[in-house]
Amino acid sequence: MLGVLGTIQNFRLVIMSEEGKQMHALAEELFPICRSITGEGVRGTLHRVACEIPIVIHDVPSGTKVHDWVVPDEWNIRDAWIRGPNGQKVVDFKKCNLHVVGYSSPISSMMDLSELRHHLYSLPENPDWVPYRTGYYNHSWGFCVAQREIDLWEDGIYQVFIDAELSAGFLTYGELVVSGQTCEEFLISCHVCHPSLANDNLSGIVVAVALARHLLARPGRLTVRFLFIPGTIGSITWLALHGDVVPRIKHGLVLTCVGDRGGATYKRSRRSTATIDRVMNYIFQEVGLIERVLDFVPYGYDERQYCSLGYNLPIGVLSRSTHGSFPEYHTSADNMGFITEDALSDTLNKAICAIEMIEANCIYKNLKPMGEPMLGKVGLYDKGGGGRSGQFGELAMLWVLSLSDGTVDLLSIAERSKIPFPEIVGASLALEQAGIIRRS
Amino acid sequence: MLGVLGTIQNFRLVIMSEEGKQMHALAEELFPICRSITGEGVRGTLHRVACEIPIVIHDVPSGTKVHDWVVPDEWNIRDAWIRGPNGQKVVDFKKCNLHVVGYSSPISSMMDLSELRHHLYSLPENPDWVPYRTGYYNHSWGFCVAQREIDLWEDGIYQVFIDAELSAGFLTYGELVVSGQTCEEFLISCHVCHPSLANDNLSGIVVAVALARHLLARPGRLTVRFLFIPGTIGSITWLALHGDVVPRIKHGLVLTCVGDRGGATYKRSRRSTATIDRVMNYIFQEVGLIERVLDFVPYGYDERQYCSLGYNLPIGVLSRSTHGSFPEYHTSADNMGFITEDALSDTLNKAICAIEMIEANCIYKNLKPMGEPMLGKVGLYDKGGGGRSGQFGELAMLWVLSLSDGTVDLLSIAERSKIPFPEIVGASLALEQAGIIRRS
Amino acid sequence: MLGVLGTIQNFRLVIMSEEGKQMHALAEELFPICRSITGEGVRGTLHRVACEIPIVIHDVPSGTKVHDWVVPDEWNIRDAWIRGPNGQKVVDFKKCNLHVVGYSSPISSMMDLSELRHHLYSLPENPDWVPYRTGYYNHSWGFCVAQREIDLWEDGIYQVFIDAELSAGFLTYGELVVSGQTCEEFLISCHVCHPSLANDNLSGIVVAVALARHLLARPGRLTVRFLFIPGTIGSITWLALHGDVVPRIKHGLVLTCVGDRGGATYKRSRRSTATIDRVMNYIFQEVGLIERVLDFVPYGYDERQYCSLGYNLPIGVLSRSTHGSFPEYHTSADNMGFITEDALSDTLNKAICAIEMIEANCIYKNLKPMGEPMLGKVGLYDKGGGGRSGQFGELAMLWVLSLSDGTVDLLSIAERSKIPFPEIVGASLALEQAGIIRRS
Repeated sequence: MLGVLGTIQNFRLVIMSEEGKQMHALAEELFPICRSITGEGVRGTLHRVACEIPIVIHDVPSGTKVHDWVVPDEWNIRDAWIRGPNGQKVVDFKKCNLHVVGYSSPISSMMDLSELRHHLYSLPENPDWVPYRTGYYNHSWGFCVAQREIDLWEDGIYQVFIDAELSAGFLTYGELVVSGQTCEEFLISCHVCHPSLANDNLSGIVVAVALARHLLARPGRLTVRFLFIPGTIGSITWLALHGDVVPRIKHGLVLTCVGDRGGATYKRSRRSTATIDRVMNYIFQEVGLIERVLDFVPYGYDERQYCSLGYNLPIGVLSRSTHGSFPEYHTSADNMGFITEDALSDTLNKAICAIEMIEANCIYKNLKPMGEPMLGKVGLYDKGGGGRSGQFGELAMLWVLSLSDGTVDLLSIAERSKIPFPEIVGASLALEQAGIIRRS
Repeated sequence: MLGVLGTIQNFRLVIMSEEGKQMHALAEELFPICRSITGEGVRGTLHRVACEIPIVIHDVPSGTKVHDWVVPDEWNIRDAWIRGPNGQKVVDFKKCNLHVVGYSSPISSMMDLSELRHHLYSLPENPDWVPYRTGYYNHSWGFCVAQREIDLWEDGIYQVFIDAELSAGFLTYGELVVSGQTCEEFLISCHVCHPSLANDNLSGIVVAVALARHLLARPGRLTVRFLFIPGTIGSITWLALHGDVVPRIKHGLVLTCVGDRGGATYKRSRRSTATIDRVMNYIFQEVGLIERVLDFVPYGYDERQYCSLGYNLPIGVLSRSTHGSFPEYHTSADNMGFITEDALSDTLNKAICAIEMIEANCIYKNLKPMGEPMLGKVGLYDKGGGGRSGQFGELAMLWVLSLSDGTVDLLSIAERSKIPFPEIVGASLALEQAGIIRRS
Repeated sequence: MLGVLGTIQNFRLVIMSEEGKQMHALAEELFPICRSITGEGVRGTLHRVACEIPIVIHDVPSGTKVHDWVVPDEWNIRDAWIRGPNGQKVVDFKKCNLHVVGYSSPISSMMDLSELRHHLYSLPENPDWVPYRTGYYNHSWGFCVAQREIDLWEDGIYQVFIDAELSAGFLTYGELVVSGQTCEEFLISCHVCHPSLANDNLSGIVVAVALARHLLARPGRLTVRFLFIPGTIGSITWLALHGDVVPRIKHGLVLTCVGDRGGATYKRSRRSTATIDRVMNYIFQEVGLIERVLDFVPYGYDERQYCSLGYNLPIGVLSRSTHGSFPEYHTSADNMGFITEDALSDTLNKAICAIEMIEANCIYKNLKPMGEPMLGKVGLYDKGGGGRSGQFGELAMLWVLSLSDGTVDLLSIAERSKIPFPEIVGASLALEQAGIIRRS
């Protein structure tokens, strides 16, 4: 337990640069892959992750009913381009996989620029950026192009080509269960369905990988489950197929957009006062970022599913800049330069801290509640008078004794007493060792 | 239901001037009548109201026991005056019915001015105004006169004459029930016992009349009951005789002093968080008047009875300047010039809005609570991405889905989401139509 | 009851100077006695107190098990000194009893100054003051000396002498029960274990004596129990031996450091909303000292024991400058000049006021809750209109009627209505007399 304490006491510190480098490098490797909610891109990504940590890769067949939804057909794209009136390629999927609207139907056709324009998406306010668009359920096709490129195109007949296929296949996701001493579960979820976008959400993937590696190397009380899933349909699918596991999930975090230069942000679960919410509140308060703890709203990433009315799981969202609040969001500007080693490290650190705080956050029962116990006879009274013996002071012990009625957790004691959580943990361990309090 | 929505969306707007004119004109007609808690004045007032809306007029015999009270004898006055030493009338009831203290005993007597002074009431601080006084239960007599008049009186013998009668009769009140689709009742109460005073309470009477006319012309969910009663003894009498109706009253407003130039005011019911309180809070917040929502105090008008400990009905008070806070209160200066068409219209508008909001304020149950339902397959997903389809956005739907567990009403959803109530109503109607939520 | 009301209405006033003089004089008499947690000093103090009020003096034998503790052996000291190299006494217990660390072992020995220094305690930051130290449970010895004295000592051999004895005996405490009309108890606790220290806690002793004298002279509803006990071990001992009395304790105050020039302070009980907490909050608010009402912390004086988890008694602390916040704390500067007659009087006044407020703080049930009762027929309606008849206004009666449902106490009514507590009490007494409300 001293290791835990040590980590907690250091939760203001950023994990060393080595992890940051490794995470950034893995993201760089994954960046070129063309992912979508199904298909070879997801599979390739998961295989690469499997080289790092022992995830299991699951395939759920197209057509499987999952609650109100159906697992869609698998989409794979081989090539796509537009040739201008002079035969030159003006758009080439092979140069940037954002160019094709996700789940576009195949096409090979000639058309006038005026007709083609109905299938073009651009960002006039950021004319150099390529937007990211999808149309999973509307069976159309389209291209995303920088506005400055389109402005150069001359009128005339354009050749449009998309070599894509939508057919029965699988929805693929990765899962890893890091077993702890108890079956109480902490869920880490990240989405793997975006093509070449760094912050959203290669950052989430690489932090999850680093976190899993960290947890695999240590014994812990909590069982931590990692999900690498396509957004929305992935979490709905997993939830629908794991009714047996769901009740064991007592805490969780969705990791999304965790690599940009904005400060850390925590979005509360729908419950708003779950242990994960209180722990994150505490951590953010300690590092002076309390104003970046946000209320739950039913919009965002996979917390929409985990926190839906019928599940209402205690799962919050750890991110940096919030969903949709940065202009680079869902554009080609969300590239590898947009995420930093430091931000990834800081996120990793906060996730580790949350898990370890929850593991240390016991509830005790004072076994000698009638008056104060005589701390002196068990060596816990500071003869020097009022000072601190080691890691905790007398006052921390008195607070633990005063509030440990078998219902109040150590985090509540830290909050009420305003004594740092690690000191409260230290005091309670000493009192437990002296036989004065017992876990309940 | 679109009508409801339309009205609600416009609740910032003042109802058109036509109603204001009508209300003011009716008040002008009623102004000269000499009303008291019983007698011909009340009856005349109610007969005039009955020409506007189909109220039923009830007579409760003097001597009827009503809780801790007894219905008093009926008081009627024909004439009253004071003649000075020179025989000239210095006070004439026929010129202003405030001159005689309500429920004065008959008298015909000569007396010295020094003796008469014990029966005179005036307002030295507003020497031109005649005060309004009553003595329902103390069997005395008195005159109310402008101080400036009294100051002119010479010493000498005065002739005093009051031709009034106090004898067994009836307490009279008017009642109208506008039936709705349910037997859930909304009570509108106004008092009809004041003589020539405009704001207190001809304003309440004419707004109630206009509101009834409005409700009679539309179908509605709530049954709305109107009471035109003498203050205090009227509400006690009605309550004592309607033990069967009381449990059906789920909301209500006392309309009093609703015509002056002061801004609107809402005084909470004793419960303070009843639906009517929450709705009024919302309306006042929307129009930037939240500081004019006041806590309950057990003083005021008939809410004293409706909100008494044993009834504790969810009935608040809608007024303009609050009870007793304006100097014209209970004086001859509370005349027709003191109330305005605009103020009456604004009050009417707020009352309509309150009723329609409560009617629209359903509680739903999400029938597809496990994850989000697939909104696309029922045409509720905005393919354009994030925009609004018609009157409500995707976020409004997500909030309704997230919170509709069968216990949370739409107003709570509007409050928590900070999305306007009409938009929440629109989203819930669409979801209901799509079979995704059901009223509970 | 009018007496009670009178006192309450005057609670802003300081009790007359006579009591202040008496309290200060008694403290002066007690000052020279060398007290500790056991021994002749405590006994002598209690005998002097017994001349003032009829306390019973109890002796609990050394070795008695009391919860997690054991009553210690009795310590008595006859003489102690240090002689310098030249044979002159440099420290003399007879001049100041703080010089010897409490519970020092006997010694008679020669030693070098360098060795002696390990047994000397001083206050370099306040070089003229002698600190107060004890070592009840560590079987050592030591001297407390002004730093400025020590600085004058030359190197050499010193003669050290302590004629003290630690042997089986008794823990002694005093107890007085002032019976009231009910067995509902209010506990007043002060500690008697400090040697020549005025504020900590002769002040507490003399206020308790004056309070007891005041209560003995009047009939009251509450039974008030006074404890004059050694700190910590005394309250633990009393609690352990009075399991039958403890459940009757419904309120209480620890009186400690109640004589210095700092303003009054109240520290809440662990419950934080017990009646004593609410009453003290009210009193402090009335006198503009609300910021001196402090949250409970499990450190301090005997409230540590009374408010320990297993007892959780509704006992707060009344003091002036808070525990440990003044530099004179536990030093020779806490002398008779440090406490004032005015401060003692003000404390006494607040304690009396708290007890009388609690006695007056009934819960009533409105017997006529349906509508308002007709106050006129029982002479409680002010015919003059709106004014006040005697000590309370109509509004106070209306609030009592509105809230007295058999669960709400008068203090809550005063708080919610913002009408002074004495006026609420007056109104409720009148309504009770009229048979409209009944104590519940």
